[in-house]
Amino acid sequence: MSKNTIAVTMGDPAGVGPEVCLDLLANEVIRATCVPVVYGDVAVLQACAERTGKPLPVPEQVRDLGAIVVGDFLPGEVSTKTGAASAAYINQAIDDALAGKIDGITTAPINKEAIRAAGVEEPGHTEIFINRTQTKRGCMMLTSDIMTCSFVTVHCGYYEVPNLLSSEKIFEVTQLTREAMKRLRGREPKIVVNGLNPHAGEHGLFGQNEEERLIIPAIDRARADGADIEGPLPPDTAFLKERRADTDAYICMYHDQGHIIMKALAFDRAVNTTLGLPFPRTSVDHGTALDIAWQGKADPGSMFEAVKLAVRLVDG
Amino acid sequence: MSKNTIAVTMGDPAGVGPEVCLDLLANEVIRATCVPVVYGDVAVLQACAERTGKPLPVPEQVRDLGAIVVGDFLPGEVSTKTGAASAAYINQAIDDALAGKIDGITTAPINKEAIRAAGVEEPGHTEIFINRTQTKRGCMMLTSDIMTCSFVTVHCGYYEVPNLLSSEKIFEVTQLTREAMKRLRGREPKIVVNGLNPHAGEHGLFGQNEEERLIIPAIDRARADGADIEGPLPPDTAFLKERRADTDAYICMYHDQGHIIMKALAFDRAVNTTLGLPFPRTSVDHGTALDIAWQGKADPGSMFEAVKLAVRLVDG
Repeated sequence: MSKNTIAVTMGDPAGVGPEVCLDLLANEVIRATCVPVVYGDVAVLQACAERTGKPLPVPEQVRDLGAIVVGDFLPGEVSTKTGAASAAYINQAIDDALAGKIDGITTAPINKEAIRAAGVEEPGHTEIFINRTQTKRGCMMLTSDIMTCSFVTVHCGYYEVPNLLSSEKIFEVTQLTREAMKRLRGREPKIVVNGLNPHAGEHGLFGQNEEERLIIPAIDRARADGADIEGPLPPDTAFLKERRADTDAYICMYHDQGHIIMKALAFDRAVNTTLGLPFPRTSVDHGTALDIAWQGKADPGSMFEAVKLAVRLVDG
Repeated sequence: MSKNTIAVTMGDPAGVGPEVCLDLLANEVIRATCVPVVYGDVAVLQACAERTGKPLPVPEQVRDLGAIVVGDFLPGEVSTKTGAASAAYINQAIDDALAGKIDGITTAPINKEAIRAAGVEEPGHTEIFINRTQTKRGCMMLTSDIMTCSFVTVHCGYYEVPNLLSSEKIFEVTQLTREAMKRLRGREPKIVVNGLNPHAGEHGLFGQNEEERLIIPAIDRARADGADIEGPLPPDTAFLKERRADTDAYICMYHDQGHIIMKALAFDRAVNTTLGLPFPRTSVDHGTALDIAWQGKADPGSMFEAVKLAVRLVDG
C-alpha cells in the first residue's frame, strides 16, 4: 500500500509554524506513516533551521512557493507580507488537493490580523477551506485523546451566535460529526448536543427558547436518521468526567463552549479538523505563539497529532 | 472563642437538600467548627431520615418553619408548594442574619421553576439574597480547592449577556472578589479577567469591542486601586493548567465561561458564595438532583465544603 501524501502548510513565517514543520519533517514515525510535504518557502525553513539548530529540510520535502523573502520579515512580528505568504501556502495546498495531487492537508498556525491585512476576507482557516472548495456543509471539529467537539459557530463575536444558529446548521454539524466519528471509531458514535443557555435554558427560563426552537428539532431529525444522541444538555454538566468517558463527540453552539474545556484538559494534544471538505484537513490547536517564535521552544506535539489524524481520515 | 452559628436552608423539600442537611447535622467535624442550624421543616427531615436510614435530627438543630406538610409533596417532584417552602426557609434565614441572630448562611439547592411557580420573581438564590438585603454591589463567586471564579452575569439568557455587561459592573465584581480573596488568602490576590469574545476579541476582530470598551477600563480602574490583574485574556487559554496554578480568582463574563471548567475539574467540591452581602452566604454547587432525591445517594461533600467556607468567611 503506497503512503499518502499530506500537504503541510507552513503557517505564518513569523510564528512557530516553520520550526514545528522542521520537527515534523525530521520525525521518523511520521515519515513511516505518510509522505509529508511542507507548502512554504525553502529559504525561510533553512533560516529557521539555522536559527533554532534544527535539521535542514530535504528539498523534495518542500513545495517551495517563493511567497516571501527572508529579509522581509522579523520572527515574532507578523505583517501584511507574512499574512499574504500564509494565504499563498493554503491556497496552493487546496488547489493541489482538489486536483488530486495530494491526499490531505495539515495546517500550521496563521495570524488572523495578518491575513486580514493581506486582504483575505475569511476570518480563519476553516472558512478559507470551506469557501475555496465551495463546500456547502462544513464545520470545525476539535479532537484529542480525551474528547472531541464540533462547533455550530466558531470565529464570530459572542453577540452574533444566537442569530447564526439554525436548526438546519445544528443538524448538518451533527451529521458531519457522526460521519467523521463513524470513520474513526468504526461504529455509530455517541453524540452529546449542548444547549446554548445556562442550564440549557432550564425549560425556557433563560434565553429565547433556542433549545426548544432550534436544537431539539435538529436532534429529532438526526435521531430519525439513526443518530445516538443525548441533549440538549446543560453545558456545565455535559462535560463531567463520567459523561466525557461515555461520549464520542460533543456538538457545541459556540467557540468557547468547547474550547475552554478542551484546551484546559488536552492542551498541545488537540487537533483541529474541518469536516465536510472534499479531502481531509487537520490543523494544530495552537496559535502562532509569536513570543516564542524561532526560538526552538515550540512543542510540535499538536502538529504530529494533526498529521496522524489526517492520515487516519484518508485511510478510514 | 464561641462558635459561629451557620443557618443552613433546607432547599427544595423534594430534592436532595433534606438528606445532605441530615448528613451535615450528623457530621462531627462540622459540629466542631460551628453550630449548624437547619432552616426547614422538622417533619420533612424526619421523614427523609426514615426513608434514607440517616440519623434523625436533634430538635435544637432545626429552626422548624412549618412551611410544608409531608403528605403535600412527593420526593423527586417539585411543585408550587415545594417552591414556596424553599423560599420561606431562605427568607427567614436572611431576616435572622440581618437581625444578627446568626453569623452566616449556607443554602441547599432549590428548583428555579418551583420558586417561579410560587411567585418568586428572582431567578435564583444569588438574586434573592441581593434583593432582600438591599445589597447595592453583589456577585456570585464559585470556589474550590483548585480554582475560583466570580461572575459578572449569571442566570440570564446567552443573548442577554452583552447588554448586561458594563465597565462599572466588571469593576465591582473585581473589587468584591479581591476583598473576599484577601480575606481567604491573607494577601493581595492574583486576578485574571477574561474577555467576552473568542480570543478576547483578537483586537476587535470578533465582537463589538467589549474588551476595549468595557473590560479594559474596569481593569485599569482596579489596577489604579492596587489590584494585581492580568487580562482581558482569551477565555480558552486563561484556564490552562499553569495559569490556573498562578491565579487566585477569575472574573468571568457569563455563567458557562466559568461553570463548564469548574464543574469538569471540581465537581462536588465547589462552593458557591454571594459576595457583597452584609453577612457570608455560601451554597452547594449542585442542583436538586430530583432523579436521586430521598434515596440516600447524594454526595454531601459540597454541603460540607460550603459550611466550612461560610465559617472561614465569618472568621476571616
